[in-house]
Order: sequence, then structure tokens, then C-alpha cells
Amino acid sequence: MNSTLLKIKPVGGVGQIGSNMTLIETKKTTLLIDAGILFPSEDFFDINYLIPDLESLIENPPTDLVITHGHEDHIGAIRHVLDKFPNIKIHAPRFAVLLIRNKFDYLKISVQIQEYDNNSILDFNDIEIHPIHVNHSIPDTNGLLIKDRENRISTFLVSDFKIDPINPYEREFDFKKLIKLSKDSQVRVLLPDSTNILSTNLQTPSEALVLKSFQEIFKRKNNRIFITCFSSNIQRIQSAIVSAKESKRRILLYGRSMINYANTAVARGLIEEGSFYTDPASLPNKNNLVVLASGCQGDFRGTFRRIAKGEDTHFKLTSDDLFILSSKAIPGSEKRISLLENEITEQGVEIISSREMLVHVSGHPGRSDLLQLYENYCPNYIVPIHGESLFLKKHIEFINEKYPSAKCTLLHNFDEIHISSSLEISTIKGEPLAPILIHGNGIEIEKHQISKRRKLATTGCIFLSIKRDSLTKRNISFEYTFEGLPNSFTELTEEFDFLINSELSGRKIKLLENTAEELRIVIRRYVHSIIGYKPITIVHFV
Amino acid sequence: MNSTLLKIKPVGGVGQIGSNMTLIETKKTTLLIDAGILFPSEDFFDINYLIPDLESLIENPPTDLVITHGHEDHIGAIRHVLDKFPNIKIHAPRFAVLLIRNKFDYLKISVQIQEYDNNSILDFNDIEIHPIHVNHSIPDTNGLLIKDRENRISTFLVSDFKIDPINPYEREFDFKKLIKLSKDSQVRVLLPDSTNILSTNLQTPSEALVLKSFQEIFKRKNNRIFITCFSSNIQRIQSAIVSAKESKRRILLYGRSMINYANTAVARGLIEEGSFYTDPASLPNKNNLVVLASGCQGDFRGTFRRIAKGEDTHFKLTSDDLFILSSKAIPGSEKRISLLENEITEQGVEIISSREMLVHVSGHPGRSDLLQLYENYCPNYIVPIHGESLFLKKHIEFINEKYPSAKCTLLHNFDEIHISSSLEISTIKGEPLAPILIHGNGIEIEKHQISKRRKLATTGCIFLSIKRDSLTKRNISFEYTFEGLPNSFTELTEEFDFLINSELSGRKIKLLENTAEELRIVIRRYVHSIIGYKPITIVHFV
Repeated sequence: MNSTLLKIKPVGGVGQIGSNMTLIETKKTTLLIDAGILFPSEDFFDINYLIPDLESLIENPPTDLVITHGHEDHIGAIRHVLDKFPNIKIHAPRFAVLLIRNKFDYLKISVQIQEYDNNSILDFNDIEIHPIHVNHSIPDTNGLLIKDRENRISTFLVSDFKIDPINPYEREFDFKKLIKLSKDSQVRVLLPDSTNILSTNLQTPSEALVLKSFQEIFKRKNNRIFITCFSSNIQRIQSAIVSAKESKRRILLYGRSMINYANTAVARGLIEEGSFYTDPASLPNKNNLVVLASGCQGDFRGTFRRIAKGEDTHFKLTSDDLFILSSKAIPGSEKRISLLENEITEQGVEIISSREMLVHVSGHPGRSDLLQLYENYCPNYIVPIHGESLFLKKHIEFINEKYPSAKCTLLHNFDEIHISSSLEISTIKGEPLAPILIHGNGIEIEKHQISKRRKLATTGCIFLSIKRDSLTKRNISFEYTFEGLPNSFTELTEEFDFLINSELSGRKIKLLENTAEELRIVIRRYVHSIIGYKPITIVHFV
Repeated sequence: MNSTLLKIKPVGGVGQIGSNMTLIETKKTTLLIDAGILFPSEDFFDINYLIPDLESLIENPPTDLVITHGHEDHIGAIRHVLDKFPNIKIHAPRFAVLLIRNKFDYLKISVQIQEYDNNSILDFNDIEIHPIHVNHSIPDTNGLLIKDRENRISTFLVSDFKIDPINPYEREFDFKKLIKLSKDSQVRVLLPDSTNILSTNLQTPSEALVLKSFQEIFKRKNNRIFITCFSSNIQRIQSAIVSAKESKRRILLYGRSMINYANTAVARGLIEEGSFYTDPASLPNKNNLVVLASGCQGDFRGTFRRIAKGEDTHFKLTSDDLFILSSKAIPGSEKRISLLENEITEQGVEIISSREMLVHVSGHPGRSDLLQLYENYCPNYIVPIHGESLFLKKHIEFINEKYPSAKCTLLHNFDEIHISSSLEISTIKGEPLAPILIHGNGIEIEKHQISKRRKLATTGCIFLSIKRDSLTKRNISFEYTFEGLPNSFTELTEEFDFLINSELSGRKIKLLENTAEELRIVIRRYVHSIIGYKPITIVHFV
């Protein structure tokens, strides 16, 4: 009998970048790795995020959730996992633990988290998980090496990593431990990061080089240096603090999320307490200053955007300032950021971005870095993860070309990999479930409601209330409101009054519902004849 | 007395890419060059386009409008210029004439256009304009050389060009004519294209190379080859037709705009009649086929998007097909296109984009091309145009480095360049006017209405009608509608009924308006407590 030893099923993060979540199942164990959110593409009108549909996990509920690191696309959906599986045990590395606690304190939900470090072995009945330290763009990031008791299979899941041997703040990717623990396994499976597979940058540069750029730039004579970067990029914040100190500049961390992450880094012992300001009002003056602003994607109510647009109360840009964009545009933010670059330029301020100098490096591996991982871990079987479908396909083409000894599979969310007791590997096609959209207070908003929102936004709307009793009278009583319609139409109140009166007066009404619908159609047709589109129209009879 | 000989005032197209429009003024002449639209960034919810505010032109209205070429960012605002200046005379090259006529036929507006060609001299009292043939991504594109009668000043406005000496379909940029006509001028002013100034591609490749790529790809065994490109890129369509014929494939042009532009090219004598299909139903079969689809930016209701998402009735992708993306993502479309690439990949179809082969070339100059223009025309004075503010600044830095003999000015829309009778050049800061948003039937939509649309889209809305007379009764009559709210809220009808009843019953109402406002606040607060945000709420008493 050839039974399944290990089952791996990504619930999110494969075929998309975000909402990372992978189910690991053995005879005696069912656990989740990561519980992340997906940031929406532009089409969803300010919804907060998307999460994987957890419905398919209910039959065999996971008992444990192991977090690899503290990015939102790995921890952001924990509250939704807890809603579904209230007794699930959470295991996380130090920095993620602090972030998760902050989050749940804010939500006033108590949560139990088991902290692990690089010496821990997470023990789950018939498997154990060894955290392997990797470099990335947030502290305490781990790849997870999952091993069975008999040391037959090693599975290394490393959704986010880079290799940074000269990193100024942490040691290099721990290949030694990875090799030591996996070399005697009969089968080695690898689930590696595909984020940068399309990049022409074959080897991701070190964070040390950004530090060097900062040190160089901070020597300039500019009175104030503004920087924006991802708030979770603690090493970047460290580099700004170090460089500011060297150049005898004070540094202000500006924006709620920037301050939150920096305070978490202080709690983690990564940043010295008192080494930065957080309140512009507390600064003795604003000369010789570095301002590190959050909202690097040009987010709608973000600090970077506010400063760039000249809307900040404390800082107005002058030609004496300098602006460093120490981040890249996430797909979908390109235009928003370039418009802000224009606004900064129009204020006479020089911009330094990756175009001009190495002021940003990725947290993900280039193709050479991936090859280095393959050559160290020597996988028999590779399943690319953490990438859009095109990325996964290109990753597989790359493996086939450069590391052909490994077998590859293109997996999608909800597909399953089964490793049998005879160590045969097969994949089973899953039934994909659409992700769930979350808006506001952690609430699901249905897709068809988003469609309605789209219609409201693209056509505006008309609300009309009619007093039912007045229909038989000489003067029909009604009231209406136009929302989001052009002035050239909203000024036509006389014409609109006439339309409603002439449609209703003397009309024999059999069924009020029908009348409301007919009136709705007449109104929409009338508006269309004037402005060229039909607003959402709602008619009430009371 | 040092009077102004020539005044140049960009009304659009400087500090932004789009809505190109430049006012030229002399003692005896006032004319406009181009009348283009600006495509909106994502924030404006499906509005069609933006146009420059023409208010500042009214004092001294232009008598003529000279069009350089037929792209929408040069001709799209003609109807709005005609609204303001009904007697303005339009001059345009052949292909643009045909496009403008199509447009006005569709709008059922009659319009007089004077056609010009490369031998024409456009005569305007004290100046004459010589069209200079340039290469670009639409046929019949011209730079305009503006000269005074005394041959003191030459002004060369060339907002869109490339240099393509091996173009298979048209002759090269006519430097010879440009030099001949301008070399004896005392002052040469240049207003050049800045679109590609940030590109690392120093020399824009020829359209001939795309033809070569198509010829190579079309030899493959794939049953069907899908291509998407800009519909106005006639040479790209020609290359697809030529390559299809050579490889004995039929070709279908698919999508309304693709067919419109191709038919215009047939009327212009650029494409042979009958060399393509336009109706999928008329095809004898769908084997050995090239399908050229419009909507290359992934436009919401476009053909490319429909095919990629498997929503087209005539074409379902199979792994036997090939998809060529023969265009680049306009800033703001990156994410939308990459999501479509994923969908194509997930259907097992290979994609060939600029990543893999030279299947797209730009219609704008790289830095070496710009230098070639400077070296041929020998300008004393350069004012970069056709670029966002950052581009213009970088263009000036480039000129200062590589062609320092020319003086440069960073101009913004509504600024003016004055050239005096003693040939001194000065710039006068203008008062910028915000562009006007157009939606639907050519109608202006005000910015604050767009803000309302944004609120509707991001919060949904609640509409409540209350029968005034019923307030004093036992049962209050009211009706309400929720639009775009989550089901978890809309299911709470009992709670909502209770809320309204308990707020209104027994209430002493002094001023109905105040009651409506108080109720509105209560409702919004209630909804917020449940879902975490406050919908637009409208309360009517009738």
C-alpha cells in the first residue's frame, strides 16, 4: 500500500504575489505556514486587502500556524484564520511576534503566540520544522525546513529571501544549517521565491551598498534630506539613522507606520532608543535634518504623498532640500509615484532614485541567487512559489535550463503535492476558490457589491422619493438628490421637475413597483440624452 | 522700442504627457498648434479624458489650428476648441484629416479642414509654417518649422518624433529640409520631444526590426497567433499583414478601433483593400490565423482583455496558440496588463513581449536621437516639451551636458516665451489653469463631483425616504436602499428598522432639515460601529 507521507497545498501565494498561506499535512499533523493578505489591484476602490478562502481547510482543520516572518503578506490574515480556527497555535520568530502582538493589542483581541528562534526545533508529531535564517527586507526572516522523523523527505519552503553575505546588520543566509540538516534526506523538495525571476538584475545587491549611498548623499550641503522607504524595512531605517549620526544630522521618523515599525525594532533591540525623533514639533529647529517618511507607494493619505504635494503642515519643500526615493514602485503604483516625482520636481527639489544611485535594493533573489540556493540545497524537486503565474512559468524555464537535474512542477493555489511512502511525488489539481475581499472592520465585501460601487463611481447616482398619497393630487410631492453628476446637469432642476410631474400626473397606477421601475427607466434615458451615460437611479414611494 | 516678435505659450503638454496644445502669437497672427486630450490617471473613475482650460485664450482668440499628426493627444480636443472658437480654421496632414473627419461624422458635426502635405507652406500674415516630415508611430507626422518673413527666427516645434532611417514604410526624418530652411535664421529655437529622456535605450530601434521579429515568429507552427498593439500604429498593422501573407496565414483585425484605424489606412492608400478580415464569422475556419486585437493597455471593455480572460465568444485560447504583446504599458496600465499576462499564461499560452524579443519599438527619440536633432538643427535655444516635469528637468540636464552651446528653459503650461525684435529671449511665468475633466457626451465633470464619486465608491451609500405625515402616527412609513454595502450589514434589516423607528417615534420635530441631518449622523455612526466606515447617507422627507 502506497500511502501519502506528506501533502503540501498552497492556499495562497502561488500565481499571485501576496496572501501567502500553505497547508502541510501528514498522517498525524495538519498545519498552516503563514497567513498573509493580498493587496488589491486598483479595481477594488480602497478595500483593505484580500484573503484566501479558508473554506477548504475546515474538513481537516490545522492545529498550528507557523509564521516565517513579519510582512503583512505573511501575517496580515491571522485574525481571519483565528476567526475560523480559534484554537490554532501560532508560532513566530521574535520580530513577527512583536508585530502580531501590536496588531492584536490594537484590535483588543488576546492571542497566544509561541516564539521560536534559529535554534528552535518545532515539533509536530511525525514531522519537525527547523527554521533556517535567511536575509530579507525585514528582520527575523526564516525559511522552514520540514522533515519527517525517518529523515526521508526534506521540504524547504523559502517564499522570501535574498543572499546578503556583506549585510551590515545580520549574518548571511544560513546555508550551513540547511545543508547539514537536509543532506542525508532521500528526497529534497524546494519551494522557492519567484518574485524577481523577470528582473535583469541577476544578483540582488547588498543592503550594505544602500548604507554606503546614504553615507555619501548625507555629506551633501542640502539643509534637509527627505527619504521615503517601506516602513517595515528596518535595516533601511538603521542605515538612515547611522548615516544621519555620522553626518551630524538629526533624524525624524515621520508617519504612523514608520514610527510603529521603528518602535518595534527598538523593542527588538535593533535600534537604540532615543536615536530618532518622532514629533516634528519637538525638534529644536528644522535645519540639518533627515526626514524618513512612510507611504513610499504614494498611498492616498500617506506622509510621502502629503509632503510631495506640499500639503504637510510641518514641512514645505524648498530648492535647498533633497528627496531620496529608497523604494521601488509595486506594480500598480508606478503612475501614482511618478506624478509625485513631478510635484517634487516642480518645487525645484532634486530627486535621487534608483535611476541615479543605488538607494534601494530588493529583498528577493535574482537568478544567480536562486542558482546558488539550488546548488547548496541540491533539490530533487522544485515547486516555484511567491510569484504570479507568468513568474512561476519563467522560473520553471530557468530551472530546466540551469538546474535540469531537478524535476519541476507549476502549481496553482489549491493544487496539492503528494509525496508517497515510496517517495513518489505527484500533483493533484485543486478546485480554486476566489479570494475574499476585506474592507473596514475586517468585514467581507462581496464582489457584486464592488461592481455596484464601480457603477456608482463611474456614473454617479440619483435618489428620488415620491409621496405616494400625493399621486392623485394636483401637486405631486417629491424630493430628489443628485450625487456625483456634472453641474451642467444638476442645474436643470426645472426640466427635471417637469419630467417627473409629466410622467406621474394623471397616471393610473396599478402596481407601484412597476411605476417605480418605469420612472427609473425614463429618468435614466433622459439623463443619458443629456450627458451620455445613465446614473444609478433609485425611486422610492412612501 | 523693443517689441515682441514672437510669443510661444504652451497651453498643454508641458509638465505632462498629453493634451498637447501650443499658442503661437505674433503682431498679426494668433494660432494654435494641436488640440489634444490627456488620458486620466487611475483616480478619476472612467472619465474619458482631460482637456486644457481654454479660458486664457479668449482675449486674443486664435484664428487657426495647425495639427502635427493624428494621435488623440493632438487631435482629441478639437471639438472643445470648436465649441469655444467656432470659426477657427483647421489645417492638418492627410491621415489626421481622415481621422478628424471620421470623428466629426460620428458626432454629426460638420467641420472644414484644410489639408496640407510636406510641400505645403502654411501662410499666416507675418509668419509661415513649413511642415517637416518626421518618423513616429502614426503616418503623416510633422514637425513644424515656424519662420518670420525676415528669416530672423526659426522655431521648430517637434513634440513627437523618432529617427528611423531604415523604416520599411516611409522615408527618414527630413533633416535636409529642416537645415535648408533654418540655417540662415539668426536665432533657432527648438521645442523637442522629452518622452523617452529617462529611457536607457539611447537610440530608438527601427520599425523594420519589429517586422523582422514578426516574420520570424510567424514561421512557427502555432495554429493561431494573437497580437495586441496600439490601433493607431499603422506600420505595426502593416508589418502584421505583410508577415501573415508571407507565412500564408490569414489575418483578422479584431476590435472596433483596430478596424477603424486600418480602414483609415486603406483610405490613405497605406494598406491594400481586402488584405485583412474584420469579421470572425466570415472566416472559413480559424486555423493558421493571425488575430490582431485592439485594447493593448488591457482596457476595461477592450478586445485584448476579453480574449486574455477567456471571455471572447469567437476565440478561446489553447496551448497551441501564441500571444505577442507588441506594445508597452503606458504608466498606470502596468498592473492591469501583468494580470492579463497571468491569465494568458494560466491557459498554457506562450507570451512573447519585449522581454523575449524585439516586438515593440517606441515612437519617440532616445538620447542619441535627440543629440542628432540638435546637431542637425543647431538650436540657440531649447525648450523641452512633451514630458512630465521630471522629464523636462532631465532633458535640460542632458542638453547642458551634451549640447551646452544652446540655452535652455524649463517651461510649464501657461508660461510664455517672448522673442523680442532685438532677438532677445525671455520667459514670463504664467498662471496655470487646472485641466477640465470630460465624461460622457463631451460634458465637463467638476472635480468636487469626482470627489463625491470617490466617496460613493469607497463607502457605498444609503438612501432613506420617510413619509412626513407618518411621523405623528403609530407606524412611521419609510423605505430605504443600501447600495454597495456588505451583505453582513444589509442583512441587518430588523436592526435598521428598529434604529429608524426608535430615532423618530415620539420625537418632537421643529425643523425637518435638522431632523434629517441628525438622523443622517445617527445612521452613519451606527453603520460605522458595525462595518468600520461611514457610507454616503441621504435622507428625504416627503
